This record gives sequence, structure tokens and C-alpha cells, in this order.
Amino acid sequence: MEKKEKVIIGLCVIADGTSGFLHFLGANAVLTFVVTATALALLAMIVGDATEQLGSRLGPGATGILQSGLGNLPELFVAIFALRAGLAHVVQAALVGSILGNSLLVFGLALFFGGLKNGTQRFKSEPPRMIATLMLLAVSALIVPTLAKELHTPAEAHINKLDIFVAVILLVMLAASTYFSVKGDASVAPQKEEVGGAEWSLTLTLVVLGGAGVGAAFVSDWFVEALQPAMSALGISEAFAGLVIVAVAGNAIENLIGIQLAWRNQADYAISVILNSSLQIALGLFPILLLLSFVLGGAVLTFVLSPLLVVALALATVVSAIVVFDGESIWLEGLSLIGLYCIIAAAFWWG
Amino acid sequence: MEKKEKVIIGLCVIADGTSGFLHFLGANAVLTFVVTATALALLAMIVGDATEQLGSRLGPGATGILQSGLGNLPELFVAIFALRAGLAHVVQAALVGSILGNSLLVFGLALFFGGLKNGTQRFKSEPPRMIATLMLLAVSALIVPTLAKELHTPAEAHINKLDIFVAVILLVMLAASTYFSVKGDASVAPQKEEVGGAEWSLTLTLVVLGGAGVGAAFVSDWFVEALQPAMSALGISEAFAGLVIVAVAGNAIENLIGIQLAWRNQADYAISVILNSSLQIALGLFPILLLLSFVLGGAVLTFVLSPLLVVALALATVVSAIVVFDGESIWLEGLSLIGLYCIIAAAFWWG
Amino acid sequence: MEKKEKVIIGLCVIADGTSGFLHFLGANAVLTFVVTATALALLAMIVGDATEQLGSRLGPGATGILQSGLGNLPELFVAIFALRAGLAHVVQAALVGSILGNSLLVFGLALFFGGLKNGTQRFKSEPPRMIATLMLLAVSALIVPTLAKELHTPAEAHINKLDIFVAVILLVMLAASTYFSVKGDASVAPQKEEVGGAEWSLTLTLVVLGGAGVGAAFVSDWFVEALQPAMSALGISEAFAGLVIVAVAGNAIENLIGIQLAWRNQADYAISVILNSSLQIALGLFPILLLLSFVLGGAVLTFVLSPLLVVALALATVVSAIVVFDGESIWLEGLSLIGLYCIIAAAFWWG
Repeated sequence: MEKKEKVIIGLCVIADGTSGFLHFLGANAVLTFVVTATALALLAMIVGDATEQLGSRLGPGATGILQSGLGNLPELFVAIFALRAGLAHVVQAALVGSILGNSLLVFGLALFFGGLKNGTQRFKSEPPRMIATLMLLAVSALIVPTLAKELHTPAEAHINKLDIFVAVILLVMLAASTYFSVKGDASVAPQKEEVGGAEWSLTLTLVVLGGAGVGAAFVSDWFVEALQPAMSALGISEAFAGLVIVAVAGNAIENLIGIQLAWRNQADYAISVILNSSLQIALGLFPILLLLSFVLGGAVLTFVLSPLLVVALALATVVSAIVVFDGESIWLEGLSLIGLYCIIAAAFWWG
Repeated sequence: MEKKEKVIIGLCVIADGTSGFLHFLGANAVLTFVVTATALALLAMIVGDATEQLGSRLGPGATGILQSGLGNLPELFVAIFALRAGLAHVVQAALVGSILGNSLLVFGLALFFGGLKNGTQRFKSEPPRMIATLMLLAVSALIVPTLAKELHTPAEAHINKLDIFVAVILLVMLAASTYFSVKGDASVAPQKEEVGGAEWSLTLTLVVLGGAGVGAAFVSDWFVEALQPAMSALGISEAFAGLVIVAVAGNAIENLIGIQLAWRNQADYAISVILNSSLQIALGLFPILLLLSFVLGGAVLTFVLSPLLVVALALATVVSAIVVFDGESIWLEGLSLIGLYCIIAAAFWWG
Repeated sequence: MEKKEKVIIGLCVIADGTSGFLHFLGANAVLTFVVTATALALLAMIVGDATEQLGSRLGPGATGILQSGLGNLPELFVAIFALRAGLAHVVQAALVGSILGNSLLVFGLALFFGGLKNGTQRFKSEPPRMIATLMLLAVSALIVPTLAKELHTPAEAHINKLDIFVAVILLVMLAASTYFSVKGDASVAPQKEEVGGAEWSLTLTLVVLGGAGVGAAFVSDWFVEALQPAMSALGISEAFAGLVIVAVAGNAIENLIGIQLAWRNQADYAISVILNSSLQIALGLFPILLLLSFVLGGAVLTFVLSPLLVVALALATVVSAIVVFDGESIWLEGLSLIGLYCIIAAAFWWG
């Protein structure tokens, strides 16, 4: 069986299976949640494959732009539905949780398993440092509204305007950084893996992309609906649900790739992929959702996070930057990053 | 026309023009402010030229000391008049604003334009790192009184004593750092640009220096008087006025030099000049003014800043240190630094 | 006279002399404190020698484990007696104070004297960076409970459980880091000084270790009893006593060794020893004491520190990491670290 057939069958199975299961299970909130989460992860993978196929027709530069744009499509849908359901805090927590998950848990797992398999890993090349530096700048910008609010400055009364201003600046940085990675100095820009020739026909690619996109929209709706009953059935707090469950479920497959690369001793590329994923959320997904939330109706998203979330974000960013600047990694650093992630997650355990 | 004639004529024009304009304009607060700000910037340039001329007679070591001492003369006058006018918060904001302006805006502009013109800029030499490290230590010391106050420790009741203690320690660091840059290891100390032979006679130099100094004192007085009416005419908050307007106006020409150096692909030297300017304020101008304010009468200056100002200072210092440690820069980093500066400035926009 | 005879005589003199002095002096609180502090420092040195002798029979790996375990024995006894005396705040302050003392004061003195003697010191090897990175991760974990409490998150109500969770994670990191330094990549693990052959017989070593251990237990008791009267006689606040007096007294000899190494231009090794000492407290002594405090009765130790202590800890860790990453040091950096330590200590001066 060809890959393309698997994808089409996969799409049908997900669409049919999910809706069938949902009727069948009905009462069992947790199982419903697990099914929708799995379906969402599979759709994310299919969108990823289709994007890569489309990219192979457009050259490496455009692929980068496409991946930035479409790679976060499922997360975008989940967030939009969650905002419409009034779950702004869950969306915030999930966005920050994705960054923490990438910068601490996934980065830690990659260094841990990569280090166990390959010993001390050295990554002298410059892209990881550049991404870590940009991430630090993005997070510094992102936390200003929370500070303005929590420290009761006069800007507290104009926080929506400040939010919009920050979002616009972050999107300018996103545009510049996308332009840079397409046109920029090859020695500094993160190296893309060699993209092979297109395996799928253009029609198939577009159909799969469209189908997966529509599917992701539906499944996202179900996922959000299933979230709250499942969390209350399990006795999990809203903050923990967003920060850990949604964030890990939403990035599961993406994350496995980063860890796999580290295992294969491609430390440089693994770190670029993992940290770039955090950067895309900070520069792209978060500000786009914030601006959209003013247009779409439903809950309004804000950069004003709970203070502990801001500190966790700052810690994760500084710590992962220092680990990168260090220029080499051992499994012990990976283990410590995982430990720090667990402690931060534990601090949000109680509702 | 010789340079010296230009300078003398310039001095007269400034003195005469400013006072004439002030009588003529009178009512128009904003125009008065712009005129005094321009006059101040020109005087700062003249003081800079005269200091360099004086330095060329004394050897590179003494030049460094002179530049540290006299380079901030106009800022010193402005601050003293502002303190006497009871504007302690404006002075604080202007001092922090100068640091933020240097470490984020000017540094960002230098990296941005330098990067656009020259591509990826590498600066492997050690002075920038050393300055960034010292700046981090100075800012860490500087923020302790604010923390002691805001966190309601027992030291809150003795904050003046703590301020004086911090000021003394900072001045010891200034003395040590000046000694180091004169006598220190040549491979680590920031390299001074080659100073040519003296072009001005000693008499001329001293006359110009004295004249410009006296001029700066007068213009500073007018500048401070013009500040508040202009700000209320424009509807600008006191914090924003100090942080952005005064800080940028007060360092305009100095800043242009740093950006110019980066444009000419002298990244190492540009970064040393820009970050050293921040360091001189933290180690010198701020503690000297604080100690003077106890003697001079008028408002008493304190290291206890508004919490947002402290966080902004810490962010700017850490972020610029990380960008320097990175060992190379791209225009994207410069743009991000500028973006962060804009966001911090925006947070102080509302009064 | 042989070294071993000196040690045995030393032990007797300390035991006898201390108890004799204590009866004799009685009323003079300060002198009693000084005597017990000196006795404790000497015992710490004897425990250190005996551990090294024991280690020379067991190979370098086991020596590392032994030194981690036994090296902090005197501090452990002091802390246990202080907790039983209800002085939980003093114990907390002393633990944080030991870290600050190592990472700022001792590190600063080492760089200052090493720099004065040897000029710019370069330390390109990797162990110091690795230790600084791990320290940053450990401190990040350590400060989460304080943040959870001070920011009034829901976890505030479950802070004991969070404390225990953090302690367990830190001890896992300790176990992993001890395993790593024994088995790990030789190019990254801190190099141990060459351990010569055993000079003492095994019996002597064990007798000395046992004797010094029992002695340390008694003297610790007296030290804690003498602490409060001495501090109130001198008018020193409890926080300053723990943070500065106990911390400096408890690590005096250990600290001299680090400074001595820097003086002999062994910058790499000196920095490893000094920063590793901080790391052992954060990963080992603090969590072990916290867990013990639940078992032993007396005051319960917590990771919830006063906010200023947390900020001081974070500053010290970040600043020392940046100084290490810098890859070279000058005496000016050392002086600045000492200055920062003085400022932080001053902030705790008032009771």
C-alpha cells in the first residue's frame, strides 16, 4: 500500500471513527477526550506530511513559510474553538504550556536520550544560539503586558491597546524572521533537512491538505467539548489541563521528531527544530490568536498571564538559552530540564 | 573656515540664539523645548570634541578618564537642575531611559543597520563581553534597594543608608574599571580609536571646554524649565518624557556615532562604545547624582525605582548581554531589540 | 610529629578545650560563639582530610561520592540542631547564604586575587560551564515553591507537598550528577585533583572520622546555643546572622582552598570547586534537611524563602553563570562580584 493511500484511508477512519466513537461512548468523558486527542495528533501529522509535499514543489524557502503557517493549523483550530467556548485561560495556558513543553520537556528528553546514546553532544553551529536569542527577545516582549498589569502601572487601564501593540511588534518580528530564514545568511539560518522530490500529485496534496484541515476543524471542536468533562472527571485543574494535557497532546508527534533527531546524533538540527517550535508560538500563534480573538467574538485573549506562568516562561527561556550557549550537552542537563518541567507542572497541579 | 572657528561661532550662536529664541517664542512650550534640546545636543558634541583635543595631549589612558568624566557633563547639569526643580522622578526615568536607550534602541539600530549593510557581523574579541558582564553586575547591585523596598524587608526603613552604600560600592567599581581601562590588559580593555595629534591650541581647548560647560549649565536650566510645559502641551506622561524624550535627546549625537561605527563594519568597537555608555551611567552618573542630591538641596534621588522600570532595566541588561555573548549578530536581532524597546516605551506611554 | 598524631591531638584539644572554655567563659556570648565557630571549622577540616584518606583507598569515583556525602557533615549537624532549636529561618538563611557566599564572595575573591597575581585568567575547559548550567537548573527548581506561595497560586495551600516533590526531584538530580561525575565523560566531568596513596591506616582513618563526626555533633550543638546570645549581644539581625555569619563561618576553610587554587593560576579547578560547593548545597544539603525536618521533630524546613532571598539567589546564580560563560576573568569582575555580595548582605543588615 502506498503512502498516499494510507493517508486517505487514515483521514476517512479518523472522520468516521471519531464521530462513531463519540456517539457510542457518549457518557465516558475521559475516553472521548483520549479519542479526540489521538485523532487530532494524527491529523496534525497528516497536515505536516502534506505541507512537506507541497513544499517540495516550491523550494526550501517557501517550505519554511508554509510550515510556519500550516504546521500550527490544528493548534489554531483548537484555540479558536476554545476561545468561542469562553476558555480563554485554557488557551493561554496551552500556548505557554506548548512553549514550556518544547523548551523544557522535549528539549530535555532530546538531550537526555541523545546524550545516553551518543555521549556528550557538541553543537558548535550558530542556528540554535540565534533561535535561543530571538526567543529571549520574544518572551521579553511577551511578558511586558503582564508586568504592566501586575505592577499596577498606569498602562493597566489600557491593557488591550498594549496587547495589540505587542502583538503587532511580534508579528513584525515573525515576518522579519521568516524573511531572514528564506533569504538570510545560510551559515546562520537553521538548516532544513533535505526535502526530497514530491511523491504525491499536486491534486492529491491539495485534497489531503483540505481534507485534513476540515477534519482538524471538526475534531478540534469535539476535542474542546470533551476537554472540560474529562478534566472534571479526572479532578484535574483547568490550568494544569491547558498547561500540560492540551500542550503535550497538541504537540505529541512534532515532539517525537525532535527527540528522534537527537537520538540519531543530529543535535544541532534537533535543537533548532525544538526551539524553533517555541519561537513560532511566541512570535506567531499567540499574537495571531490574540488579534483574531477581538474579531471572532467569544472570549478575548490577552498577553496578561498569571504571574507564575510568566516566571515559568522566563525561567524556561533563560535556562534553555544557557543550555544552548553552553555549546554542548550531556544527558544530565537533559534530566535536569525534565525535572524542572515536572516541578513547574506540579506547581499548577492544584486547581 | 577652521574647525576651531566653527566651534567658537557655534558656541556664540547657541548662547545668543537660545536666549533670543526663548524670549521670542515664549508662549510656545513645545518649540522652546525643541530649541533647548537641540542646543543641548550641540553643546554635548562640542564638549566631546574639546575633551578629545585635551585628551590628545595627555595620552590614551587619561583620555579615557576625561571622557568618562566630561562626556556626561551636559547630562549631569540637566539632572542637577531637574533635581532642584523637584523632578526626581524625571531624573530617575532619564537615567534608566539612557541605559535602556543605549542597550536596546541604539544597540538595536547599530546591529540592524550594520547587519543590513555588512551581513552577519561577528565580534569575537573580548571587550564587549567584559562590558556586558560588568553591566550585569552593576545593574544587579543597582536594583537591590528597589527590591528591599518593594518586598517590604526591614531595610525599607533605612533605604537612604542602603542607597548611599550602593552608590559608594558602584563608585568603587567605577574607579577600578577606569583604572583597569587605563592600566589593564590590552587584550581585554576596549580598544580606543586612534587619537590623532592635538589640532587645537591648549588655550583654545580650555576656553571652548569652559565656554561649552558654562553654556551647558545655562541651557540645561532652560531645558528643564521648558520640559514640563512642553510635555503637558503634548499630553505626554512624566515617566515617558524622562524615559524616552529626555534620554534620547540627551544622547542623540553620542548615539549616532555608535550606529555609524556599526555601519562601517566596526562591530566590536561600536558595541563597546554603546554598552560602555550604559555602564558609565550605572557606575558613574547615577551614584554621583544620588550622592550630590543629598548635598545640593532640592529633591533627593534614590535607587528605588518603579518596579516596571527595574524589570525593564534587568530585561535590557540580560538581553543585550545574551546578544553579545552570542558572538555574532544579524539584522534580525537588531530589529528585535528595537521592537522590545518600543514595547517597553509603550508600557510607559499612559501617564 | 606525624600528621595523624596532630589530628588526634587536635580532636582532643577541640573536645576538651571547647567544653572547658564554655564553662570558663559562660557569660561572654560573643567569645563563646567565636570559640565554637573556630572549633567547628577545624573539625570540618579534619573530616575533609579523613574523607580524602578514606577515598584514596576507594578510587577517585567513590571519593567524589564520599566528599559529597561527608564534606557537608558539619553543616548538616549545625542545621539539625538549629532546626530542633526552632531556628528554621536561620537554617534557611545559612543554606542560601552558603550559596551566595560561594557564588559571589568566594568566587569573587578567587577571581580578584587570581587576576591580580596572574593577569587575565582564561578557563576554556568545560566543567565550570556545566556546573554553572546545572546550578541554574537547580536554583530554578528551588525557587518554584516560593513563587507558588508568594504569587498566591492554588498550590499555596499544598506547599508542603510541593516542597517534598521538589526535594525528591533535586535528590534525583544529585544522584544523577554524582553518577555522572563518577562514570561520566572525562572531558566534561570536573577533574579531581590527583589523590595520593593513603597515608593513614584504615583504622586510624575510621577512628578520626568517627571522632570528628561525634565532635562535630557536640560542637554544632554548642554553636547553635551560642548563636542567638552572641547575635543579640552584637545587635545583628537573625537574617544577617544566618546569611553571612553562619554561612561564612561554616565554609571558611573550604573557601580558602578555592581562593588558594585561583592564586596558583589553576582557575579552572578553582571555579569547579567553588561552584560545585554551591551545587552540592542546592542539590543535596537543602533537600535532605527539608526531608529530615519532617522526620526529626522541631521546626519544619521549607523551600519557601523570603522573596529578597530568592531574588538574591537568582541574581547570584545568573551573574556567576555569565561570568563563567564569559570564558575568562579579570580582577575587575572579581571585585564586582564582591561588591554585589556586600550590597546583598547590607540589604539584610537591618533586623
